[in-house]
Amino acid sequence: MNTYGDKFRVTTYGESHGPAVGAVIDGCPAGVAIDMQAIDAALARRRTGAPRQEEDSIEWLSGLNDGITIGTPIAFCIRNHEARPDDYAQLQHLFRPGHADYTYYMKYGLRDHRGGGRASARETVARVVAGTIARQLMPEVEIVANAQWPTECPDDDTVGGTVNCRITGVPAGIGTPLFDKLNAMLAAAMMSIPSAIGFEMGAGFAAAGMRGSEYIDRWNPDGTTRTNHCGGIQGGISNGMPIEFRVAFHPVVSMARPVECLHEDGHIETVVIGGRHDHCAVRRAPVIVESMAALCLANYLL
Amino acid sequence: MNTYGDKFRVTTYGESHGPAVGAVIDGCPAGVAIDMQAIDAALARRRTGAPRQEEDSIEWLSGLNDGITIGTPIAFCIRNHEARPDDYAQLQHLFRPGHADYTYYMKYGLRDHRGGGRASARETVARVVAGTIARQLMPEVEIVANAQWPTECPDDDTVGGTVNCRITGVPAGIGTPLFDKLNAMLAAAMMSIPSAIGFEMGAGFAAAGMRGSEYIDRWNPDGTTRTNHCGGIQGGISNGMPIEFRVAFHPVVSMARPVECLHEDGHIETVVIGGRHDHCAVRRAPVIVESMAALCLANYLL
Amino acid sequence: MNTYGDKFRVTTYGESHGPAVGAVIDGCPAGVAIDMQAIDAALARRRTGAPRQEEDSIEWLSGLNDGITIGTPIAFCIRNHEARPDDYAQLQHLFRPGHADYTYYMKYGLRDHRGGGRASARETVARVVAGTIARQLMPEVEIVANAQWPTECPDDDTVGGTVNCRITGVPAGIGTPLFDKLNAMLAAAMMSIPSAIGFEMGAGFAAAGMRGSEYIDRWNPDGTTRTNHCGGIQGGISNGMPIEFRVAFHPVVSMARPVECLHEDGHIETVVIGGRHDHCAVRRAPVIVESMAALCLANYLL
Amino acid sequence: MNTYGDKFRVTTYGESHGPAVGAVIDGCPAGVAIDMQAIDAALARRRTGAPRQEEDSIEWLSGLNDGITIGTPIAFCIRNHEARPDDYAQLQHLFRPGHADYTYYMKYGLRDHRGGGRASARETVARVVAGTIARQLMPEVEIVANAQWPTECPDDDTVGGTVNCRITGVPAGIGTPLFDKLNAMLAAAMMSIPSAIGFEMGAGFAAAGMRGSEYIDRWNPDGTTRTNHCGGIQGGISNGMPIEFRVAFHPVVSMARPVECLHEDGHIETVVIGGRHDHCAVRRAPVIVESMAALCLANYLL
Repeated sequence: MNTYGDKFRVTTYGESHGPAVGAVIDGCPAGVAIDMQAIDAALARRRTGAPRQEEDSIEWLSGLNDGITIGTPIAFCIRNHEARPDDYAQLQHLFRPGHADYTYYMKYGLRDHRGGGRASARETVARVVAGTIARQLMPEVEIVANAQWPTECPDDDTVGGTVNCRITGVPAGIGTPLFDKLNAMLAAAMMSIPSAIGFEMGAGFAAAGMRGSEYIDRWNPDGTTRTNHCGGIQGGISNGMPIEFRVAFHPVVSMARPVECLHEDGHIETVVIGGRHDHCAVRRAPVIVESMAALCLANYLL
Repeated sequence: MNTYGDKFRVTTYGESHGPAVGAVIDGCPAGVAIDMQAIDAALARRRTGAPRQEEDSIEWLSGLNDGITIGTPIAFCIRNHEARPDDYAQLQHLFRPGHADYTYYMKYGLRDHRGGGRASARETVARVVAGTIARQLMPEVEIVANAQWPTECPDDDTVGGTVNCRITGVPAGIGTPLFDKLNAMLAAAMMSIPSAIGFEMGAGFAAAGMRGSEYIDRWNPDGTTRTNHCGGIQGGISNGMPIEFRVAFHPVVSMARPVECLHEDGHIETVVIGGRHDHCAVRRAPVIVESMAALCLANYLL
Repeated sequence: MNTYGDKFRVTTYGESHGPAVGAVIDGCPAGVAIDMQAIDAALARRRTGAPRQEEDSIEWLSGLNDGITIGTPIAFCIRNHEARPDDYAQLQHLFRPGHADYTYYMKYGLRDHRGGGRASARETVARVVAGTIARQLMPEVEIVANAQWPTECPDDDTVGGTVNCRITGVPAGIGTPLFDKLNAMLAAAMMSIPSAIGFEMGAGFAAAGMRGSEYIDRWNPDGTTRTNHCGGIQGGISNGMPIEFRVAFHPVVSMARPVECLHEDGHIETVVIGGRHDHCAVRRAPVIVESMAALCLANYLL
Repeated sequence: MNTYGDKFRVTTYGESHGPAVGAVIDGCPAGVAIDMQAIDAALARRRTGAPRQEEDSIEWLSGLNDGITIGTPIAFCIRNHEARPDDYAQLQHLFRPGHADYTYYMKYGLRDHRGGGRASARETVARVVAGTIARQLMPEVEIVANAQWPTECPDDDTVGGTVNCRITGVPAGIGTPLFDKLNAMLAAAMMSIPSAIGFEMGAGFAAAGMRGSEYIDRWNPDGTTRTNHCGGIQGGISNGMPIEFRVAFHPVVSMARPVECLHEDGHIETVVIGGRHDHCAVRRAPVIVESMAALCLANYLL
């Protein structure tokens, strides 16, 4: 379904090339003044270097009175001024490689060939707005993510990369021990971001090659530890150290060079796909990673 | 909470050194003959090389009539014959490094120092029973996991490792596009296993270093692909290829050599911790990975 | 929270005197042509005799392509053109009797004194739109409700009444046996309608005075029964007979005559409350009862 | 499903004539000493005048250490010593009138003809144990229910009745405004009790015949009201007055006199049904009403 969270619950809507995208946020406490400039700044980060440059002007439909929350659901929408469904006309009967065209078709029996419907980076705009509101409700928590990526790449190809995230200000004792471990919920939040393909806490995959004596984070007398191989979570619960994780993103699967598409009638067709392409989407991922981390934590901390 | 799943819902209970562990399974269809030998075999795999060798004899409390499901909740319990709470007396005021002792204490304000309470490998026995039942409900799905790990290690130290999992028989079109993407749900399921510290689909972290032209899985005319870098899921939905992922496990944090514990009064104390230790828990992880994968898929396929 | 349902999930938003009311509908199957005239007709029934006559013009934000569902969330909003927050200025420090002013204040520590915020009949407009869509997805089900109410009443007073509802076309076997019995879910749906104060299935409270030999619905050989005292549900599951229930509504608590309000400083103040009043809201209840019944059933039948 | 609640979550299991009934309680805070005598007393109330007199001896499987909660799930089972499946042999191909035999069969395609499976009063034993634990977690809340019923009845017939319930100690401000109104959740909880057929808050169905001027509860300066026609809840949220409601129960549908059953092959057969019958089950309903009220409130107050 299109809802994230339990206590702080975000329901998103909107197709990439439909009239609007947006969300309803349920569970936001009353009496909080929302910093609209912070939301605009986050949306600007999300547009960094994007081929589709939209204004992202937010229309608030409910939940605010003079910019202050009143405890009722916060609804907003952002119009899709830059929708160009015609760019996609050539794809009406083709499945692009690496895209969700085929899997959506197999699930729904139809597809919105115009820009991928919900399976589009456009959908993350609602996550960023909601996540930035969540951050404002937890001012003691600081979430900082940054991206690495291969810097050399031909014009008609694309690159992936990784995003490191470090969260401070989460007290010890946050999380649950069994299935909804804090690390498990962070993993799900991150893997729900388009193009995410890997997740690791702290030492991550490298820990699989360590010995226990090397891996164990040694205590300081104040309850902090000298290293942070576990990434700040033990047994599914925060230990008060920074929460650290890394997310791998595969390269953008839309590119300017010719690609082999599968036609619905079963033959393969090499086409150059129109529309706006982007070399390196991972540049825009940090603010999305931070937003999803905030949405995840809000369910524990509010 | 202690419940996994939505349509096929498993609620587990039981502390490592309490009277019993078990679960209630809700959502199992009526009329299925449960293969008890398969469950015993799965439990035997879970005990492979374990220092605590319990009989794991299952007592069925409800939901079955002559071994056939009747559509009501299936409840079972397994007695903890081998509980040795005295082994843990020395730890009453100590927080072991790398364990959940400290985080549980910070969350609950108390701790069950006897074997970690719920934060114990013992808890996974209920996951294996429930997961093995789930597999029997989806005979068309085959789930195979296997482990790699460093083979050289001193007697008083421990190793981690990785588990590869490959699932065949899941048709294209399974999953959801947004927050509950099939890959996100698998990530959460795997990261909820004790000691899991990383998760990746298909090419995983290596994909972050690939170019798009290299990463894209090229079509065969029948809708399969020549490579499977995406791991069988696109846009959160299965594409009919094998679902492939890898889980990293950190080394066991209990070991026979002296470790530095944090005392509740704030000093550090080096102790040799009694109880039964295990070099390499990742040997037992494959059946748990398979079981959690089955529990995850059952929510989509039943 | 502001979400109803599980498989067919409706999240509503909007305050009575804010910019808009609306909802996001998740779980609607793809490929259904929505009958917009039926929605307008339902909204017109909801306005019958209402003192606040709004145009109720629906803006569709997502989920539709040329009026046909595409499987993504359906979002809509309806602007509040007739909002008159000034009517409520006199109530800034008063708690009206019989209203939710006081309980909201005790819960949220503030209140949106302008028209009751979410605790307003205005909120039901989103239920009617969503419920009418739900009905179109279950064309085999017919839901008909009608109201009874005292017809004589002074101009400055109000009346309550009851609404009978009869649902045909639900096959036997729908519902669940324990906590989420179909009758329990219908009861919750109905009691969530503003002013609902009682609910009964079939013979209802009268059944408490019957003998068993009188109450039991006798079989016809085809599995129908000669009477329908149970209201079409046994053990929480439909039996194929019409589902019949009755909802009691208390009188409108806003009236044109002077009422005693509680001032925040603890004195009682007799005031004539401005704003638009209504003699008999129960006239408009049937379409809301039908809509909530449809939302309830959609979770079982879709 | 077989789970009630969200924060305080009870998952019940067990068939009437299977090996055991029981539940897993998730969300119980740590450090609470459970009053076992109060549980036994509640179970004794549940047996009042019942034809099936079981010992109801509880076996605690997890969650307690020396009778004190440790924050982990509390699991328990109660063996069914008095199971007499043979009493039901005559019913193998018959659907009793008024029972859930037919609806279960239509839902599951099979039935556990031995005592109704889950559709049996036996299932309420788990509700009473869990509800009595819930009450102990909210010592400030007092819940008192009592039953009325027709006292004259032939030996071979049965009667229904009503149960009034009055809850004090719930502060103002408890509940939610929209779909999960406190009155709606109480209605669902009560209507989920076997044989419940009606529910009303405060003045209930009688309020439908009142005028507004008569119905409105007039303020005292301290925020209490002179009457309590609304039953202590306004706009879905408690107002600090006693919460008062009434539940109607239809007569027991098992009786000693001959009844007409429907045979699976479509003919009607008059039989005298063996097994243990009970004139007046509503005598035992108050402790079940109190238990369900406690389970409902625990989700708001814990």
